[in-house]
Formats: sequence, C-alpha cells, structure tokens
Amino acid sequence: MTTDARYERSKAAVFEAVRTVIVADGIAGLTADRLAEASGVSRSTIYRNWPDLAALTCEVFDELMHRDSSKFGGDAVTALRDYLADYARRLNDPTYCAVLIALIEGSMRDEAFADVHSRSFSQTRSRAAVIIRRGQSEGAFRADLDAKQGVEEIVSPFLYRRLVTQSQITSRQVEHLHQRLIGAWSPPS
Amino acid sequence: MTTDARYERSKAAVFEAVRTVIVADGIAGLTADRLAEASGVSRSTIYRNWPDLAALTCEVFDELMHRDSSKFGGDAVTALRDYLADYARRLNDPTYCAVLIALIEGSMRDEAFADVHSRSFSQTRSRAAVIIRRGQSEGAFRADLDAKQGVEEIVSPFLYRRLVTQSQITSRQVEHLHQRLIGAWSPPS
Repeated sequence: MTTDARYERSKAAVFEAVRTVIVADGIAGLTADRLAEASGVSRSTIYRNWPDLAALTCEVFDELMHRDSSKFGGDAVTALRDYLADYARRLNDPTYCAVLIALIEGSMRDEAFADVHSRSFSQTRSRAAVIIRRGQSEGAFRADLDAKQGVEEIVSPFLYRRLVTQSQITSRQVEHLHQRLIGAWSPPS
Repeated sequence: MTTDARYERSKAAVFEAVRTVIVADGIAGLTADRLAEASGVSRSTIYRNWPDLAALTCEVFDELMHRDSSKFGGDAVTALRDYLADYARRLNDPTYCAVLIALIEGSMRDEAFADVHSRSFSQTRSRAAVIIRRGQSEGAFRADLDAKQGVEEIVSPFLYRRLVTQSQITSRQVEHLHQRLIGAWSPPS
C-alpha cells in the first residue's frame, strides 16, 4: 500500500471514529486515546497526522454539515415541503444532532467552531431564503414577508423540538409546519 | 466557625465556581482541580462533600434554572409580553445560556442531566401554557389555538436566536414577537 493510500485509510477510520465518539460520549470524549481505540489507528499516527484535535473535529464537522446539497426544485410550495422534510431528516440523524450541539457548545468559546457553525448555518439559511423569494416571485407568498423572519419561522420549530424536547420529528409534524407556514404566508386574497 | 457554617461557605464558593467555569470553559472544564482553583476551596474538601461532580453540576443547574419564579399578572396580552421579556432576559444571561447548552448536551447521554433539563423545561412550558389558556378564557386568543403549539411559537424563536445565531435578544425583538403572536392568535372578528 502506498503512503497516500495508508493515509486515506487512516483518515477514513479516524473521521468515522470522531462521528462515533461524539454521539456516544459528546465533545468531552474526543481525546486521542478514545479515537485510537475507536478507529484502530495508533495514537502516534493520530498525533502525527492530526496534532490539533480541535482542528480535526472541525474538519469532520464541516464535512458532515455540508455533505448534503439537495436541490429543491419545483414550485416554492413544494420546495418548502421538501426543504422541511430534508431538514427534519438531518436533525433526526443522531450524528448530525450531536455535532450540531457540539458546535453550539464549542462556538461559545472557540473561534474555529464558531466559524464552522456560522458557515453551516449560513447555508441552511440561504437555502431557505431562496425558497421564500421564489415563492414571492411566484405570488404564492406575501410580498411583504421578511426573508429573515421567514427563515426563522422555518428553522426554529424543529430545532426546538430536537434540542429542547429531544424528540424525533415526525412526518406529520413536517406536514403540519408546512401547512402552518403556507397559511401564514399566503397573500391576502 | 461551626462545621455547618464552614460547609455553607464552601458550598457557596463551589457553586459560584461551577457557574463561572461553565461560562469560561464549558462542561469539559468542570473538574475538581478547576473548581478548587476557581473557588479557593481545597480539592480534598470538594472530593469529600461532592464526590460526584455530575451530581454537583446538576444541583447547581437545578438551582439556577428555578431561581426565578416571576408571576405574570394582568390580562393575558400583557402577561405574554412580560413572559417574553423575562424569557429574553434569562436567555441573554451568559450563565443561564451556558447552563442550558450544557444541559442539552448532557441530556443526550446522562439521565440526571436529562431530568434537570426536563423539569426546567416543564416549568417554562407550563407557565406559557397558563398564559395561553388565560387569553383564551378572556377571549383575547382563538379558542382553537393548541396550547402545545402556542408554547412552541412562544419559546422557539428566542432559543433559535440565542443558541444558533448566538446574538442577544433585543427589546425590539421582544416587542416584535409579541405583536406577531397577538396577531396570529387573535380570534376571527
């Protein structure tokens, strides 16, 4: 095996271990010892390739948060439903949720975490904002709907449910939020 | 000084240290060494009185989350504004916010944390639900407004703003959410 192939194999194992450990033990579990145990990669290899564990964590999180780039086509009302279903699916994933919480926790103190968190949320926000503006140009949503306000109404209920009540988001709840937003946003007839 | 008085003095210093350390270093900072340093109480006294650091943390969090018991009197529309202002003030407090994030983080893995988190949120929720029902009996809010849904609409926007966008909640935003809820909830005329 070439050095490059060995590196790629270690990298895949270590990245997978970061995702496993964050779900099992939270951010406090991300030590070189624990990653070596979970990945089967030696501690010395981990230290050599990823001397900065916080940077490694950020890299894994960044990859995870940007893995999806679903496109939401069709009319804005349909795109909004697809967006909500996709967002619910991501939040329901224990790894995504654990990483999101770790990012929120880490962002309070660490600029690198804050940066990953902020870029990840910019993406979430801008995809929602695109759908809102498309709905406005199609005449499906009120012209005076503030995009920033609309994004908050799309994103905050599921976050509350997942982070605070810590329950899974059901497809019925996706349907229900979709109906509620469409109702609140339709232009006066 | 009596043993009791000495214990109370240590307890006050250690509890204060838990609050300081959680804001500065997050949950990972809550070690006996760090608490001894921050409180001026010896490590051996900490170990003797609080052998279980997770239990100590839970006790401090529990006290902090239930410290406030503001009553929201007057009509429901006024009570709702007072509730929103009070909730914004609590979330804007860096200690409350850090503890809330630590509870969310810890609840994923630890039953004691999950218990504190769940009791604290039950209180938040039930106080909001009382205001919603009062507004319904006063005729200020639609009779078909679902209380659980209403609580989510009250609580989730500020949580999103504080945890995700990590900005302070302004009094203008309190005013704005109040107007939005009153508008959405007023009975058909």
